[in-house]
Amino acid sequence: MKQGMLIVVSGPSGTGKGTVCTELLKETPELAYSISATTRQPREGEVDGKNYYFLTKEEFERRIGEGDFLEYANVYGNYYGTPLGKIQERRAKGEDILLEIDTQGALNVMKRCPDGLFIFLLPPSIHELESRIRGRGSETEESLARRLGNAKAEIEIGRKYKYVVVNDTVDQAVKRIKSILMAEHCRVDLNQEMFEVLEDEKK
Amino acid sequence: MKQGMLIVVSGPSGTGKGTVCTELLKETPELAYSISATTRQPREGEVDGKNYYFLTKEEFERRIGEGDFLEYANVYGNYYGTPLGKIQERRAKGEDILLEIDTQGALNVMKRCPDGLFIFLLPPSIHELESRIRGRGSETEESLARRLGNAKAEIEIGRKYKYVVVNDTVDQAVKRIKSILMAEHCRVDLNQEMFEVLEDEKK
Repeated sequence: MKQGMLIVVSGPSGTGKGTVCTELLKETPELAYSISATTRQPREGEVDGKNYYFLTKEEFERRIGEGDFLEYANVYGNYYGTPLGKIQERRAKGEDILLEIDTQGALNVMKRCPDGLFIFLLPPSIHELESRIRGRGSETEESLARRLGNAKAEIEIGRKYKYVVVNDTVDQAVKRIKSILMAEHCRVDLNQEMFEVLEDEKK
Repeated sequence: MKQGMLIVVSGPSGTGKGTVCTELLKETPELAYSISATTRQPREGEVDGKNYYFLTKEEFERRIGEGDFLEYANVYGNYYGTPLGKIQERRAKGEDILLEIDTQGALNVMKRCPDGLFIFLLPPSIHELESRIRGRGSETEESLARRLGNAKAEIEIGRKYKYVVVNDTVDQAVKRIKSILMAEHCRVDLNQEMFEVLEDEKK
């Protein structure tokens, strides 16, 4: 069984990761989304193993101790985290897993899963990034300045990724990411079994 | 100016390289085809620098001596060759160049242009390859057996390439190659200037 890929889509705050990943998942039904673990109570209709992995606080903390989280945070008393074990289980079954994550999180994933496929989403320009953050209308001038400052620092992190995709339009960005996935599936080093099959046929 | 890519599409005899490359060029107008050099006389309507680079025998042999050919052959007294200099000139202008070449030729190109993008075209099966060669109707049983034997040996060479594309249908093969080209254009190491532009904008 060919192992699935871990696809990490990341980028500075305000680049539009969420929108791009939602559209990518819609257009790519065979792509699975990395499910987070949490200690908060399930809301009505939420299903364990679909919306979240619901864990007790004790279980979550035990797993932190075992290093099972690629990253985690405690938000208002509830833990949220990305479980590495679950990702590896699903990859072993041949599933490609999409992980949308901030740049700091992605740096951690690079250390733990160096075989991940790291795609950096860039805004077309700093000016455009500013417009987008302003467009949300929810920022004060101070928080806008802070977010922009962070974004600029984060762009430098992109140099560590394998691919860079400009999010000029969501359609174009999704098209580029889909091409990257198709290309990666054609890598010779990930398709050794293709040669073996043909070689066996020779006999 | 960002340098253009040298895209080398290659594969065993009978895999359908020619058909795939013709369709790829049709669907990708910005992709340029590597023009061969020859010492044969131009036929009516043939244009120097478009159909071929027409060279005198002396000029061709001088260039062989200078190592300007990625590969060349003498067919019935006329030389044919792939001029490296012309490819490098066009790449310097930012043009992506497509080179369709046999597996032996591709091995030479790997030595001379290790930064080329090497794509190996595979038949879906040896059985299918045999049907295709038989379908041409132009082979004796003896030449068929020889071609199949060669093809099987050539498949092993594919392990040295970066990408492998199964030519199950021409449409699918072309789609995969187009995705590979789009993905390669998103490589971070080939897009350093994108980060520099955004960094300059910060100031």
